[in-house]
Order: sequence, then structure tokens, then C-alpha cells
Amino acid sequence: MSTENIADTTIYTRRESEARSYCRSFDTVFTSASGSEMTDSKGETYIDFLAGCSSLNYGHNDPDMKAALIDHISRDGMSHALDLHTDAKSQFLEAFERLILKPRDMDYKVMMTGPTGTNAVEAAMKLARKVTGRRNIIAFTNAFHGMTMGALSLTGNSSKRGGAGGGLLADVTHMPYDGAFGEGVDTLAQIEMMLSNGSSGIDAPAAFIVEPVQGEGGLNAASTEWMQGIARLAKEHGALLIVDDIQAGCGRTGTFFSFEKMGIEPDLIPMAKSFSGMGLPFAALLIKPKHDIWKPAEHNGTFRGNTHAFVTARVAIEKFWADDTFQQMLGEKAMMLTSGLQAIAEEVPGASLKGRGLMQGIDVGSGELASEICARAFEMGLIIETSGAEDEVVKVLAPLTTPNQLFRKGLDILLDATRATVAGHRLAAQ
Amino acid sequence: MSTENIADTTIYTRRESEARSYCRSFDTVFTSASGSEMTDSKGETYIDFLAGCSSLNYGHNDPDMKAALIDHISRDGMSHALDLHTDAKSQFLEAFERLILKPRDMDYKVMMTGPTGTNAVEAAMKLARKVTGRRNIIAFTNAFHGMTMGALSLTGNSSKRGGAGGGLLADVTHMPYDGAFGEGVDTLAQIEMMLSNGSSGIDAPAAFIVEPVQGEGGLNAASTEWMQGIARLAKEHGALLIVDDIQAGCGRTGTFFSFEKMGIEPDLIPMAKSFSGMGLPFAALLIKPKHDIWKPAEHNGTFRGNTHAFVTARVAIEKFWADDTFQQMLGEKAMMLTSGLQAIAEEVPGASLKGRGLMQGIDVGSGELASEICARAFEMGLIIETSGAEDEVVKVLAPLTTPNQLFRKGLDILLDATRATVAGHRLAAQ
Amino acid sequence: MSTENIADTTIYTRRESEARSYCRSFDTVFTSASGSEMTDSKGETYIDFLAGCSSLNYGHNDPDMKAALIDHISRDGMSHALDLHTDAKSQFLEAFERLILKPRDMDYKVMMTGPTGTNAVEAAMKLARKVTGRRNIIAFTNAFHGMTMGALSLTGNSSKRGGAGGGLLADVTHMPYDGAFGEGVDTLAQIEMMLSNGSSGIDAPAAFIVEPVQGEGGLNAASTEWMQGIARLAKEHGALLIVDDIQAGCGRTGTFFSFEKMGIEPDLIPMAKSFSGMGLPFAALLIKPKHDIWKPAEHNGTFRGNTHAFVTARVAIEKFWADDTFQQMLGEKAMMLTSGLQAIAEEVPGASLKGRGLMQGIDVGSGELASEICARAFEMGLIIETSGAEDEVVKVLAPLTTPNQLFRKGLDILLDATRATVAGHRLAAQ
Amino acid sequence: MSTENIADTTIYTRRESEARSYCRSFDTVFTSASGSEMTDSKGETYIDFLAGCSSLNYGHNDPDMKAALIDHISRDGMSHALDLHTDAKSQFLEAFERLILKPRDMDYKVMMTGPTGTNAVEAAMKLARKVTGRRNIIAFTNAFHGMTMGALSLTGNSSKRGGAGGGLLADVTHMPYDGAFGEGVDTLAQIEMMLSNGSSGIDAPAAFIVEPVQGEGGLNAASTEWMQGIARLAKEHGALLIVDDIQAGCGRTGTFFSFEKMGIEPDLIPMAKSFSGMGLPFAALLIKPKHDIWKPAEHNGTFRGNTHAFVTARVAIEKFWADDTFQQMLGEKAMMLTSGLQAIAEEVPGASLKGRGLMQGIDVGSGELASEICARAFEMGLIIETSGAEDEVVKVLAPLTTPNQLFRKGLDILLDATRATVAGHRLAAQ
Repeated sequence: MSTENIADTTIYTRRESEARSYCRSFDTVFTSASGSEMTDSKGETYIDFLAGCSSLNYGHNDPDMKAALIDHISRDGMSHALDLHTDAKSQFLEAFERLILKPRDMDYKVMMTGPTGTNAVEAAMKLARKVTGRRNIIAFTNAFHGMTMGALSLTGNSSKRGGAGGGLLADVTHMPYDGAFGEGVDTLAQIEMMLSNGSSGIDAPAAFIVEPVQGEGGLNAASTEWMQGIARLAKEHGALLIVDDIQAGCGRTGTFFSFEKMGIEPDLIPMAKSFSGMGLPFAALLIKPKHDIWKPAEHNGTFRGNTHAFVTARVAIEKFWADDTFQQMLGEKAMMLTSGLQAIAEEVPGASLKGRGLMQGIDVGSGELASEICARAFEMGLIIETSGAEDEVVKVLAPLTTPNQLFRKGLDILLDATRATVAGHRLAAQ
Repeated sequence: MSTENIADTTIYTRRESEARSYCRSFDTVFTSASGSEMTDSKGETYIDFLAGCSSLNYGHNDPDMKAALIDHISRDGMSHALDLHTDAKSQFLEAFERLILKPRDMDYKVMMTGPTGTNAVEAAMKLARKVTGRRNIIAFTNAFHGMTMGALSLTGNSSKRGGAGGGLLADVTHMPYDGAFGEGVDTLAQIEMMLSNGSSGIDAPAAFIVEPVQGEGGLNAASTEWMQGIARLAKEHGALLIVDDIQAGCGRTGTFFSFEKMGIEPDLIPMAKSFSGMGLPFAALLIKPKHDIWKPAEHNGTFRGNTHAFVTARVAIEKFWADDTFQQMLGEKAMMLTSGLQAIAEEVPGASLKGRGLMQGIDVGSGELASEICARAFEMGLIIETSGAEDEVVKVLAPLTTPNQLFRKGLDILLDATRATVAGHRLAAQ
Repeated sequence: MSTENIADTTIYTRRESEARSYCRSFDTVFTSASGSEMTDSKGETYIDFLAGCSSLNYGHNDPDMKAALIDHISRDGMSHALDLHTDAKSQFLEAFERLILKPRDMDYKVMMTGPTGTNAVEAAMKLARKVTGRRNIIAFTNAFHGMTMGALSLTGNSSKRGGAGGGLLADVTHMPYDGAFGEGVDTLAQIEMMLSNGSSGIDAPAAFIVEPVQGEGGLNAASTEWMQGIARLAKEHGALLIVDDIQAGCGRTGTFFSFEKMGIEPDLIPMAKSFSGMGLPFAALLIKPKHDIWKPAEHNGTFRGNTHAFVTARVAIEKFWADDTFQQMLGEKAMMLTSGLQAIAEEVPGASLKGRGLMQGIDVGSGELASEICARAFEMGLIIETSGAEDEVVKVLAPLTTPNQLFRKGLDILLDATRATVAGHRLAAQ
Repeated sequence: MSTENIADTTIYTRRESEARSYCRSFDTVFTSASGSEMTDSKGETYIDFLAGCSSLNYGHNDPDMKAALIDHISRDGMSHALDLHTDAKSQFLEAFERLILKPRDMDYKVMMTGPTGTNAVEAAMKLARKVTGRRNIIAFTNAFHGMTMGALSLTGNSSKRGGAGGGLLADVTHMPYDGAFGEGVDTLAQIEMMLSNGSSGIDAPAAFIVEPVQGEGGLNAASTEWMQGIARLAKEHGALLIVDDIQAGCGRTGTFFSFEKMGIEPDLIPMAKSFSGMGLPFAALLIKPKHDIWKPAEHNGTFRGNTHAFVTARVAIEKFWADDTFQQMLGEKAMMLTSGLQAIAEEVPGASLKGRGLMQGIDVGSGELASEICARAFEMGLIIETSGAEDEVVKVLAPLTTPNQLFRKGLDILLDATRATVAGHRLAAQ
């Protein structure tokens, strides 16, 4: 296939479903990527501030992961192994135990679910219901937990929910997230009142499921006090605490788990996205041992435990989390991001910063404006996307490993794109 | 990690969830695999008659797929690309169009769902409900379609269903599969009577979902007449026909799609398992163009469209399906399998053959007996599993590419294992 | 209001909801009724072969019930008493215990539910789920159990179900009634296969609910063997047996309970319709004492235990069921009905008799023909209605107390109406 | 049966279900009642401050209703007439149109549902879903709408919900009622935020259902502003407004409808309890004509339209609502009630008044205290009950027709009972 053919996108309109989406905003054919840069079939290079929606926290094609994976394939290492024991899985589990769990004084079993976040969430929902004998799960406004029917019942977005064509999304109560009713309204107190009132109509919950930072919901970041309050409520009401760290985990907020410094102990933790290190499909559910009451194969799946992903996930853990060097670097880079975004926000009347760590963005007030800024940034060589109920947040999800210079360059493009967009609007308004 | 450490399985009891299953039957640590053979950390080699539950139809680590994947990784080809256009995806779609769809005169859009069969099934359920504005989906006894809440509502197995902890499995009617009530009972006629009776309590269906051969349900194979009848009923009642070809597709029954020779045109076809060629997580939903009414991102997911899998899936198509050589070979091998299984069945009083193509097995009458045969086979170097509501079927799912000599060797082991088991039972009964 | 005004029906089109139905077929204003005859505002008299859909088994305004009720009202007896103890309730319960339960060697608690059949059914559903800890309830094709959401989920009729506007009707499995698949097909065996197959997708049932004769569903009468089979299946599968005797009970089939001679012991028996004797709103759920695990007020309602109905229900029991005179008369009248209907059926090609006891009718093959016959009968002074999924059955539900001469007169009108209708069709077809 | 036998209550423990409740608090056998007084089998007389839970707003056995009903029965007026036209129904509808609807400039169709409040609520739910094509219904904390599965899904009380034994209560969102989060928290604003946020997880509602005063929920009375806000939200979001006036209607709050002076126009109004005038089972759904899209019999029921109740309901309308005399009297009596309750509340530290009109009570802070006061009042000849999530409210629901002197006497007993109870507690605490 010639380069020209590669750049041809008619195959997509002819053969790929209308459900496709990102390719509509970034309408080119990508052929390679390394670190924080992506290259298309025309040889254009883009800085990646999307990072596979936080699936590429360690950048594209990390050389050590590549080398390990190529070595594994070359020596006929297992590619598909159901949930059999493999050397790759042993080594992953040992690294995860030694470098992630033990240093954090955490004791969890690892359940290899189907290799998608939504599958880990579904496993968590089932297990919480099985453990408690209850059905109701409390999810939050602006939550996103996945698109299969169980996870979708937890998800807030009406368009995603509507895609189910009227299929049943039951046994879930949607409650206001921290800050959902504006500053000064204590949503925790209200949730507590609803649960304590025996006539509120809210059935006793099997679980609370919460994202410490809502990646799809607009980078809403819960306060430590609120998260502790939810943890306390869960305990008081006999419910499990499920912390969905799929998008915010793996260093994205500055620590491996996004809730590490909050003093809470989740019962169940769905992980996915950057968990494989290299963007390969991989997900797991971390389970407090006392809750691990599954019968063999009671929740199973053909691709649970992606062997290639075990290889790269182990390298990711050993390379980035063996000591605190990486974590310290993340703190510095987060400050750089905050100050960069503050400068950009000043260009947009009424704009405000959202999120925390390396999961920050700017609420520019409207989805149209945010989309326009992102489109203009793409023209200028930066890949960046929106988030939020109305797509009103320009969201930065750069690889955590992005070199400072490139990171600044990306922020500069974003600043220029924002300025140009705002100026265009001013002109149009005159 | 030394070989000794690799063979150590205490990490699994310490850290892997109780949900793990296959590793309990095949309790060793696998380190490499090639073609139809797997090797463990002690250097033992096993013939693989499980093939990742039909995910490895082309064998382990096919050299051409390996080469293409290593080349892709080496040159920094995309590893994770959301649903962006990539050269790998273009090339896969073009090969699929040219070598699979066109020669079969089929016109389908390809929806890249999350890379698991259950996700493709959930997408099909949503779409059928969206297209028809109805909710009820008719599934069949002994069906298995996946473990997320939507797909699970279609699944027959009570233990799998029970794992949902009482979560809701609604909007599905379970009907008897072909032969479910024994020979001579026409289940199609009864389904028709239920649908035609306006007071049967069965709501008008959005879809029928059917496996042409029930892989998990005991290798029940529907007749062509019955499948045509279901297709006709679907049309008459304004319902979509979903043919789940996840386990039976990709050549397993002798043709690329298991329903090719039945003269039916499914509206939606979930594909997974061997669709990537090399056992990598990958799934897709084939959609008749008129039904492709998705809005962008209405069903999405982080790992939809696994780029590494595009590379190997394209090689699989080009290598095995460019002409009819492979398909002819499959027919011959299926006959070899049938005659081999007949010889084995003669050893077991009351045993009978199930399935078709290279998806056949022996119903030995009890799950205990079948499990014992499989356990003994494992001791003798053969990996093989059971199937069916009571695990009563010994199921052969060898790689389609297994060389004849090795295939016969596997069947010989199965024969010996069966003889030994039956003899043991006779002794015990005396 | 003058007689003329009384005959005016514009108030109905102006003020009564479109949901009204019987008044459309019998478009006159009724002013009084006695025994088996009703009189309208124009002084016309009609023989009643509808009997309030079996709510007036003892005829209109039985003189003894009238006298007792007038006496009760005159002496300021309680009219509304919630579920307080009243002399009227004590006397009803004592009569029911002494003359209904004890002679039949039955031991049941009486739960005063809201005074409608659907409420008694809902109470039965709740209790069966509470007792077993299961949710699924098995109901049958052509079943009718009521119109509130719980009872409606059991009901077969698609038009009734559709009236719920897409509200959820879950946790019910609809199975084929005796004879639903035609003669020679043993639906019991098939239900048993579905329940015994652990992969059928049918969840373990909390209960079976069955009408011994399906009043709304077309006068399908289950055989004793089939009913015994269902009772056995319920016991074997740990489910409760609910026999809905709302329409078939209170003597309609020849005995007080319609299942008396079948050798089965239902766990729960919803009663309503003729249970009050005089057509007053009244319903109850009979509960085997071991299942009576309700907490106080766990199922309640403002009108549970209609005091006026206690008065008339007691009279009905004492007057008709103190010895077997009434029951013997029912047997004779049923034979008269059968022979009368046979003569009529001979007028209609392909017609057949349905039902048993004084709950019989003629399946004339089409709803149009049946409706035409009923309309013509009304013109001739007989009130009679259709039944069945397609309204294809002309159903006789005369008061059980109808004098023989009047009964014969009614049958004669029906014969004439049928002949005239069939003759009209013959003419039209020429 | 001798008087002695009548007083015997062993028949209840022997034969009435454990679900019975009021008879446990008021453990005597009532034999007659007139106006606001009830008499038991021992000749004891009680003042009735319960009034059949607001079903006896016009007192027991009103002489005019009695006379009309006896006359109707004596002349063989219809007792049961399905939904046929009857003189009794015509006259009721004409009186309702002339004296209730027209003077209030209201235009509604009357749907005769099954004769219970819960049935009218279920009909409203179905119709709202049918009209809007949506499923979600918004109900409020502490709401009570009935015990059948549809209405129960709206009901807040966890014990009532739990009685469903895990049956599904879906498609309802429970929101905070006016004041549910304490003074100063604007629940309306929060409901609006949840509905306006496309990612809140709250599906677009088919309807809001609200009680202007929550009878079972603790006499919470919504403000006019809040009710107007809910009406506005319903309109803005394309939802129907259902005002459940079952307990608060028929004069209980001082006007025929409890919302008359609020400037709102409900789409659907379920009525029951005192709608029959004399406590006979009777319910109806008032429907704005444009929403009356029922097909004939799409929601039906054997006892819809209780003919005896038509007779007494007409008398009630003509006697009490032909001019504003009765309504003026209600205003005066409500003031008497308020001042009487204030005096009583002063006896209980921390107590506060709840409710409005003749539907007021005292929140005494605990269910135990409230129950003790009621029990002591019963000993002193007053029948009165508690309300609220914890039964913490002593609720006065006297017949509206109670003569002033008797009303004062009842309040005096309540004052004495409260004083004695509080004094007893003080002693115990010393």
C-alpha cells in the first residue's frame, strides 16, 4: 500500500460504523508515534495532549516496554492464555505486589477481568451486590464508568444512556458529586440525609462508586473531606466503597492511585487505561481479600489477562514506580501545567481551572468555544480534546513522561489557539 | 527470575482472585507456545485442544503474524490509537472488505467495539433496541453471550447469572434452541405460536440472538432449517437477527462465518475470539448498513480498535482466506475429527457426538466423567476442556492449523484417556 | 332527574375517560337489577349472561344480602373501618372458617388486601418473593391477573401490557398453559425441561401462578393432571403455588374453589369478584399459615376489608354453602349449559366448546363473528360478552342462581342470535 | 352471635393475616359509628380523630348518604355494574361537573379505576408514560402513593418497599420534597440542577408526582412557591404533573382540592379515600382531556366504578359543596385545630406543628413518644394515630364535620394524654 493509499480515508466512510468519533475531529491517518508525539501518513507530527484518554501515561512506544514485548513475542511467549498461569503473569503480579501494594501498605487480590474498564466496573458491581445481598448502587452526577449495560446504568451522560435504546438501566441511584450544586452546598450532608431517612425511597446501597477526579464528566475533583465522607457513609450504611481509578490512576494525579493521600481504603478498585503501560487492552479489579468470594469462573471472559499487557505492565511498574523519582517529577510538572493553564484561562472571560495533578483543564463556559479551540490547536499541531456534560472543558491529558520543553510547546500552542479563537469571536461579535 | 521461581504458583493464591478457573484444571506455568503446542516452565510440552476457547484458530504465534507485529512495534507503529484512523486499521478494513465480505457478497459496516465478545454483543443489543424501538430480545436455552450485564441477561447458565448478585437481567425472553426438548419436538413451531399469540405475554422482540453452534452450551448445532426459520420469524415479527459468531466463526465450522451455507442474512454479527488471528483482544460488530444509525461515540470505549490486533488480523485474512485452500483443508480435517471422535465415543456407553466442523465433541453423559477424562488427558500431555450445562461434553477446539500427525496424536491421547477413565469406573463399579 | 335525563349519555362522552369499555357494547343506562335480569332507563329488561364478569354469581341484589346490608346501614354499622376489628368482620371470618375452610379440610389465613383482585394478586407476588427470597414468577400464556404493574407483568394480553406505556414488567417468565401448543404437545414436560436445565436462562421461580380456568384468556381449562404436575413442579423447585381463583372461584365451576377436586394444595389463593356475594368491592388473599410472615402493615391499603362486603359475604356463605344443595344444583345446570352450547356450536362451522362448569363458551373462530353474535344477542335482550386473545370465544357467565327457565330463555336467544349472524354471513358470502 | 362472642378476638389471631395493623393499636371490636364517634362491642364510645385515614371526612354514616344508599338498595338499584352506564353514575358525573369542576374552572375527564387509591395512581403512571413515551417518574422523599408494585416504586418508606420481597421497583427517581434538607435549602433549585445537567444520570421524566401535604410522610406541607416551581419544571421538561390528592383532597385542607389556591393545573389527579363520601371503596383519576388517550379497556378492572359509592359521592357533593358554607366552616375549624395543637405542643420540649388545614399534627421528636401519647389517648376514649418516617408525628385527621364541642373534647383528651405521657417520662428520667 503506497503512502497515498494510506492517507485515503474512504475505507472508513465505506466500512467503519457511524459510531466512530475521535477520527472525525482529528481527520488524518496516523502511522507512528513515540513518546509524546504522533506522526501521520503525510509526515506531519503532532504533540499528543490526549494520550489515549489517559491510556498512554508513559507515552507511546516506551523503548523498554517495546524491547520487552518484542523479546516476548520473538521467543514465542504466550500471546493468549485464557487465565492460565504464565511466567508473564507471575512476574506482573510479583512486581505489582512488591512495588505498588507493599510500599503503600495495601492488601488486595487482583481479578483479571475482560481487558476493558467497563468490564472491571461490571465485575465490581456484581461483586458488591453478591457481598452485600443488596442491589442499589450509588453513582454520581457526571460520572462515567463505561458503556456495557451494567456500567452504563452508573453513567450520567444522557446521550450515552440513550444509546441503549431503552434497555433497562436500573438499581442505581444518581447522587450529586462534590460541588454539583455549586459552592457552599454540602452535597455530602444531603446524601447522608437521604440515606438516613427511612422514607426517602433510596434503597440501602450495595456500594458507592466514585471517581476521585471525573475524567469524562468535566475534570471535577472531589475534595479529600468529601471522599472521606463518602467512605464513612459507605461504612455506616454497610455498603462497599468502589473507587474507579481507571482514568485518574497510574500516576495521572501525581501518585499511583489518585486517592493515595486521602486516607481512605476502597473495597474495590477497577483499573484499566494506563495499567498496561503501553496502551494495550488490559483491566483488573483490585479486591480487598475478605470480599473475594467469587466462585471459579463466576465472572469470566476470553481475553481476561492479556499476556502481552502483563509484559509491558511489569516494565512500567519496575521502570517508573520502583522509587519516588517519577512521582516527584509529576508534582513539578503538575505545577507547570497549572501555571500554564492559568495564563491561558486569562484569555477567556469567565474561564476557570478544573482538575488536579496532570489531569487539569479549563472550563471555557461553552462546548462550542472549547471545541473550536481544540480544532484550532489541531491545525497548529496539538492533539487535545474536550470534556464535561456540555464539552465545555478543554482537557489536558498529556503523557506524564512528556519532556518539559515539549510540554511547554504544547501549552504555547494551546495558548495561541485560545487567543486566536477568542479574538475571532470578538471580531464576529463586533 | 529463575526457572524455579517461574514455576512457583503461590503468587496466584496470594494475589489472584478466586474467580480464576482454567489454571485450576491445568495447574502449571506456561512460558511459550507455538502452533498447536504449549510449553510450561518445567519444559513439558502439551498438545493444545483448547486453543484459547477458539481464540487461537490459527495456532499460537503464527510466524507471519509475529513478524508483522514485531515489525509494527519496531517501527513505532501505533499501539493505542482510540478510534483514530491508522494505517493498520485502513489495511485491516481493506483486507476484510476485499477477501471476506466481497467474495461472500456481504455488505456490512464494521463497528470497533471494546475488544471483547461481550462488548460486541452489548453493542448489538443496544443497536437492535435503538433500531426497532423495542426492548425484548429473544435468546436461547444454553446460550452464552458474555458476562457484562446486558450480555449476561442473554446467557442461560444459572451459575453465571447468579454471579450478578441479584442485579437485574431483564428485557430478555429465553426460548428453546433447536433440539432443546428432544428429537421430534419442533421448537421453532412453538416459538412461532408464542409470538403469534397476542396473549402469550411475550413482548414483540427487538431481536433474536443465536449461536449457530453453541460453544459453551454443549456444542449444540442448529440445523439449517431451524436457522432459516428463526431468520423468517425475525423478519415477520419486525425483529433483527443477531448471529453471534464469536466462537463458531473464523473458520471453526469449516467456513469463515459459521452460517455461510445456510442462506440467511444476519442484521448484526458480533465477532471476537479468533478475529485478531493471534489471540489478541479484539472484537467487532458487523452491521447491515441500513441499521448503522449510531450517533458518533454513542457506544464507545478506550480500547475499541486494538491496533496490534489490526496488524495480525490483516495477516490472518491474507494468509488463510485469500483463496479456498484453507477452507478445503478444514473440511478434510473435520472428517478426521468426526471419525476420531466416533472411535472414542464407542468406548463410553451411551455417548454421542455433538457439534460440527472443527467444533465437535462427545457427550459422555455426565460432567464428572467428562472432567475426569480431561484431567487424565492433561496428565498425558493434552489440554482439553468440557462444555455444556452440566459440563457433560468433552469438547475439541484444536487450532485449525494443527498438522494432521499432531492432530491424530491428540486424538490418540484422548482415546487412551477415555479408555483409562472408563476402565477405572468399571473397576470401581465391580 | 327525569327519566329522559337519565337516559341521556352525553355526560359520558363529555366526562368519562376513553378507557371505558363495556358501556360501548351495551349502550344504555341501567337503573336496576334483580336476580339475573337488568332493567334500563327505558324500561327494557335484559337477561344477564355476563354477571359482572363472574362478580355476581349469586345474582343481582339477592334479597337476603340486601336485607342484611340495609339492616347494617340502618343501625349505623361500620361502613369504613380500615383493618380494625368489627362485628361484621368477626362474623364473616367465623362463617368462612366454619362453612368453607373446615368442611374442605383447608387451613388458611385470610389477608384483607385492597378490595380488588389485582391487589390480592400483588400481595401474593410480594409474599411469594419474600418467602422464597427469589424474584422470578412463572405465569402462563393467556393469563389475566390484573392491571396494576405487578399483576400486569403476569398478564399475557399484549394490549393490556402495552397500556403500561413501556413501564417495566420484569421478573416474570411466561410459559405455555395446558394445551397452548395444541393437542398432543405436553407443555408440562417442556416446562419441566426448562426448569431442570441449569442453562435454560429461566431463574429459579418464587412461584407459579395459575388460573384453573382462564376466564379472560378464552375459557381454557387445565386438566387435573396438568394442575397436579404444576403443583409437583412447584414443590420440587422450591416455589410457591398461587392459584388465582378470582374468576373461577365462588362456585363458578361447580364447587366453591375451582380446584377442589384436583388434589392440590395451593400455598396462596387470591379471591375477589363474587367473594362479597353482592358485587361489592372485596378481595382477600388466602395464605397457608406457615407462609404468613408479613410484618404488620407491610402490605396495607385504605379500603382493605370492606365492611359492607363482610356483611353480604357472610350471608352468601351461610345461604349457599351451608350444605351441598347449591353445589348439586350447579352440576345439573352445568350439564344444561353444555348441551345448550353444543346445539349452538352446531350452527357455526368449526366451532368448539371451551371451559367447564358454569364457565363455558363457544370458540367461533374469529373475534368479529363472536362480537357480532353478542351484539345481536343484546338487541334481543341478552347481555353476553366475548373472551380470548382474539375475542373469539362467546362466553356464558350467567349468575349461578339463574332459574332454569330464564337460563333456557337466555340460551335460546343466544341460539337465535348465532343463527341470524351465521345466516347473515352466508348471505354476504354468496 | 351474642355480644360476648362479638367481643371475642381469637378469630383474628386464628384466621386473619399477620399483615393486620390498626387493630393491634385499637384492640377492641367496633360495632357501630355515627358522625365522629365509634362504639365498640362493650358499649364504649370513642371520638374518632383518625377518620379512616381521611376516608371519612364527612363522618361515619352521614344520615343523608345513608338514606340515599338504603333507598338505592331497596329499589334494586345496581350494586355491581362493571363500567356500564347507570343512573347512579350519570348523576354522580353531573354533580361532579356542575358543583366541583365548573365553579373551579377546571376541565377534566373522570377515569373510573379500580376503587383504591393505589389503582388510580397506577393508572396515572401508565398514562403519563404513554403520553410522553418516557419511563422515569419523579417522586419525592416521604411520599406514599400505594402498595401495588407501580405505586410502591414511588413510595419512600423502606419497610413498605421491603415488603415487595425484592421485586423490581424501577423507573422512578426519588427527589427531596420541600424542606427535606432543612430550612434554607432550596430543594427546587437542586432538582432543577439535576434535570438541567445532561450528565446527571436522571432520565428525562414522564411525570412528577407530588402530594401537596404528605399524609403518611409526616404531614409535610409544600409551599405554594415550591408547588408552582414543580409545575414549572414539569412543563419545561415535557413532563406531566400528577397531584396525588387522595388524602389531602375532599376538603381536608380547607378546599375541595388541596391545591386550589396554588395557581397550578395538574395534568392528572388521583382521587380516593373520602371521594365516596361514606368511606366506600371508590377511586378515580382526573385527566386533562388532551391526555385522555386511553384505548377502551386499556386499563380496566372488575370493580371500577362502585355504584353504591356513586350514590353516596353524589350526596356528599350536593350536601357539602353546593355553596361555600362548608368551606368557610373548615377555615374556622382549622384555626381551632392550630391553636389547640399549639397548646399541646408546648407540653413537649422541642415539639413543632406540621401540616395545614384540618390535616395537622405535632412532631414530638420520636416515634416512641408519639405512639405512647396515642395509646394513652385511646385509653381515654380518643382514636388517633401517628405518621412520619419514624412515626414521630401525632396526626389529627378528625372528620371535617365534627361538631366544635366534640372537636374540643378530643383536643382536650389529646392534651391530657400528652401531659400524662410527658410527665411519665420526666418521672422515669429522674
